[in-house]
Amino acid sequence: MMQAADMFRTHPRQSQVEISVLAKCVDECYACAQTCTACADACLGEANVAELVRCIRLNEDCKAACLATGEMLSRVTEADWSVLRAQVRACLTACQVCGAECEKHAGHMEHCRVCAEACRACEQACQALLDAIPA
Amino acid sequence: MMQAADMFRTHPRQSQVEISVLAKCVDECYACAQTCTACADACLGEANVAELVRCIRLNEDCKAACLATGEMLSRVTEADWSVLRAQVRACLTACQVCGAECEKHAGHMEHCRVCAEACRACEQACQALLDAIPA
Amino acid sequence: MMQAADMFRTHPRQSQVEISVLAKCVDECYACAQTCTACADACLGEANVAELVRCIRLNEDCKAACLATGEMLSRVTEADWSVLRAQVRACLTACQVCGAECEKHAGHMEHCRVCAEACRACEQACQALLDAIPA
Amino acid sequence: MMQAADMFRTHPRQSQVEISVLAKCVDECYACAQTCTACADACLGEANVAELVRCIRLNEDCKAACLATGEMLSRVTEADWSVLRAQVRACLTACQVCGAECEKHAGHMEHCRVCAEACRACEQACQALLDAIPA
Repeated sequence: MMQAADMFRTHPRQSQVEISVLAKCVDECYACAQTCTACADACLGEANVAELVRCIRLNEDCKAACLATGEMLSRVTEADWSVLRAQVRACLTACQVCGAECEKHAGHMEHCRVCAEACRACEQACQALLDAIPA
Repeated sequence: MMQAADMFRTHPRQSQVEISVLAKCVDECYACAQTCTACADACLGEANVAELVRCIRLNEDCKAACLATGEMLSRVTEADWSVLRAQVRACLTACQVCGAECEKHAGHMEHCRVCAEACRACEQACQALLDAIPA
Repeated sequence: MMQAADMFRTHPRQSQVEISVLAKCVDECYACAQTCTACADACLGEANVAELVRCIRLNEDCKAACLATGEMLSRVTEADWSVLRAQVRACLTACQVCGAECEKHAGHMEHCRVCAEACRACEQACQALLDAIPA
Repeated sequence: MMQAADMFRTHPRQSQVEISVLAKCVDECYACAQTCTACADACLGEANVAELVRCIRLNEDCKAACLATGEMLSRVTEADWSVLRAQVRACLTACQVCGAECEKHAGHMEHCRVCAEACRACEQACQALLDAIPA
């Protein structure tokens, strides 16, 4: 886990969302981005890479969505929640689809099992944040 | 303008979306990402930076959403359109909100005028792509 | 080609490097990042993906270095040239190595030929910028 | 802290660098990227933002270099150490310069104190990795 909460606590402006929910989502976004990057590379290093093409593609997309979301949610100043809500929804969808794909390979590839867990954790943190975002 | 179309034409797999619509959206995403990065920095370099805080924030968020979207749409292999659709929607929202903010300053700051145009062009390309995405 | 020059011309602060050299490097960085992303995906979509593993890896690394460099060079305000110089050198190295790998496949895969050209153009723009950076 | 080590341990290929050194550097890169993003935003939210312009700029550059480095080091398959070495050097330089700037404000702004620590930790992890990279 990371330390997004430390930075939210020292911020000169007040977050409109409870810090623990926001920090959890930021931490999971960066963790999932790193894990998906590593899982795509691990799949690429497998002897049967040709069977893992869809997994690699979804890993890369999930990574991109998570990084954008983690970066955007790391900012508190002048947050526009219509922008952030749409991005968190995109991240949640990417995590759902990538996590489901990794789960299929989780039984015989440990990196896909770890990655499926990271996607699931990020998906849940995105959902918790969506529930907490001001209407 | 960039050259996304060249790469789509040389791709071993067929895109499910008309290449010209997809390439236009990719090109506008990267162009808008660069312009927003530069506009945030130009605002930061203005003497009245304190009045441009919201503009800088939205520029940075729009940049992040555009980069993720441009990267994800640059891939054709095993595209999952539920993931891509949600990301394009997030990008469209970011461009709308950032473009509207930049437009407010377009009369007295040339970089915001150029940036508002880039956001508008990217927003339109995202809408055109959403209209073309397989249901 | 993109429009980095437009934004440099409207910036409130003066660049310490000639705008045409800087803008050329920014444009090539974003173009190379997009092309490398697309080339990695095109390689992933090839029937003989297992033989293209090194190419995909280098494409992804080159993309990451180019994006960071393009973003950092898009900023003029309070530039620290020791930071920028090191990043441009990293980008140049990534373009050299990736371009050389893509060139090997350029004869039978059109996407690698286009990508080798993008890498070469970016490498040259990085070298031109390094020559122009204040000592 | 994150979990890069988990993914390296489950990777089908052997890293040429000791996993603990590599994982430490990856973790610090992502942590520093998040912290710098948050510090730039916290500076932007301060009443005296005009005096923090250089800090914001360096935060954004450090973030970009750290993200690229964290992503590139997350891959083990077909690593090219000339590319990685140059990128780690760029990251180290960015962390040094950004950390020194944040340190100046550490006495009166807690977010800059936390960020200076993150930069310092990342700089050290980069140095340890450079010492361990195969010649």
